[in-house]
Amino acid sequence: MAVRVDLNISLDGYATTTDQTREKPFGEDWGRLVGPYTATRTFQERVLKQPGKGTTGVDDTYAAAYFEGIGAEIMGAGMFGLHNFPDDPEWKGWWGDETPFQYPVFILTHDAREPIDMPDGTRFEFLAASPQEALDRALDAAAGQDVRIGGGPTVIKSFLKAGLVDRIHVGITPILLGRGINLWEGLRGLENGYKARSEAADDGVTHLTFFR
Amino acid sequence: MAVRVDLNISLDGYATTTDQTREKPFGEDWGRLVGPYTATRTFQERVLKQPGKGTTGVDDTYAAAYFEGIGAEIMGAGMFGLHNFPDDPEWKGWWGDETPFQYPVFILTHDAREPIDMPDGTRFEFLAASPQEALDRALDAAAGQDVRIGGGPTVIKSFLKAGLVDRIHVGITPILLGRGINLWEGLRGLENGYKARSEAADDGVTHLTFFR
Repeated sequence: MAVRVDLNISLDGYATTTDQTREKPFGEDWGRLVGPYTATRTFQERVLKQPGKGTTGVDDTYAAAYFEGIGAEIMGAGMFGLHNFPDDPEWKGWWGDETPFQYPVFILTHDAREPIDMPDGTRFEFLAASPQEALDRALDAAAGQDVRIGGGPTVIKSFLKAGLVDRIHVGITPILLGRGINLWEGLRGLENGYKARSEAADDGVTHLTFFR
Repeated sequence: MAVRVDLNISLDGYATTTDQTREKPFGEDWGRLVGPYTATRTFQERVLKQPGKGTTGVDDTYAAAYFEGIGAEIMGAGMFGLHNFPDDPEWKGWWGDETPFQYPVFILTHDAREPIDMPDGTRFEFLAASPQEALDRALDAAAGQDVRIGGGPTVIKSFLKAGLVDRIHVGITPILLGRGINLWEGLRGLENGYKARSEAADDGVTHLTFFR
């Protein structure tokens, strides 16, 4: 029952991008940041439903591990979409009826909402809770499996600062973004109590894992 | 005739440490930052004169490459020691009579000094020059070999910003320092025009190289 984080960051530590425009709502930086991940067979098959497509190297090994052994997830209101669609009481997330979860997902928000049961078995539950309180709920719901702190980076940082994460995996894309939310800022000494393992992919991406 | 940079940085990009005290003049962070490098056989043999000691893995491969093919070096006044000993006109650097250079070293300073010829063949020359001007001098002196921009990080950043570096190797130690001079700050888009290669060492260190 480990608490896990998986995140794509730039070499300079940025986990978000800021170059979005109306014409390019994700900007160009986002594609470059997550490109090695979205190119994997796991992402192509599981998320884009493109069987047989995608890369099968080190990046894909980590992409596949992302989906393994998770029994519940915690995410922020922004990642679920509540900041984009605050006035839609029927908002059910970005993922449609076939979500990538199929387990309980706890969304941290002060905007109280009723739980949503999706057709694929995913249950979205809304909590106004501290990281520890939310984690206690998620661990209960995970029934012995791992809990993922899904994002965004601000939520992940709050769990890291609270010392609640057992395994942190970052896929480091070799680009410098220079702006956005920096995963590492304010986390001096985070490595204490963890071991570190680094693995390199052929495309220049580094997969770094802190684990207890 | 490539222009090269080699540097140890923390996972959050810091190339210097700030926890020095009178009792511990290097602080504790510095030892942790450069520990994987100073543990290598190359450093143990070449710098500490301890034959047969030291690690022989990936970290050592990069440590050995650090010394190969360099025909001249450029460094800042601080790295040479002029900030620590500004009033000593006889100051000849930190390295004693047997330096790790044995080639021309150009020190960027507005404090005009006569060149110093060391017994081991190293020549220290002092320049008040722009990065491009200093590089032109160093390339001439290197006689067809590579030029290293030795440091400190502020000097390295000025050469990176000027687009003068052909190969940037960083050994990324998996620790978060949270303070000091950040190598990546202000260098958004540095990756443009470079290829990236990542290689992992068993101790969690990542060796990332940008090369043309």
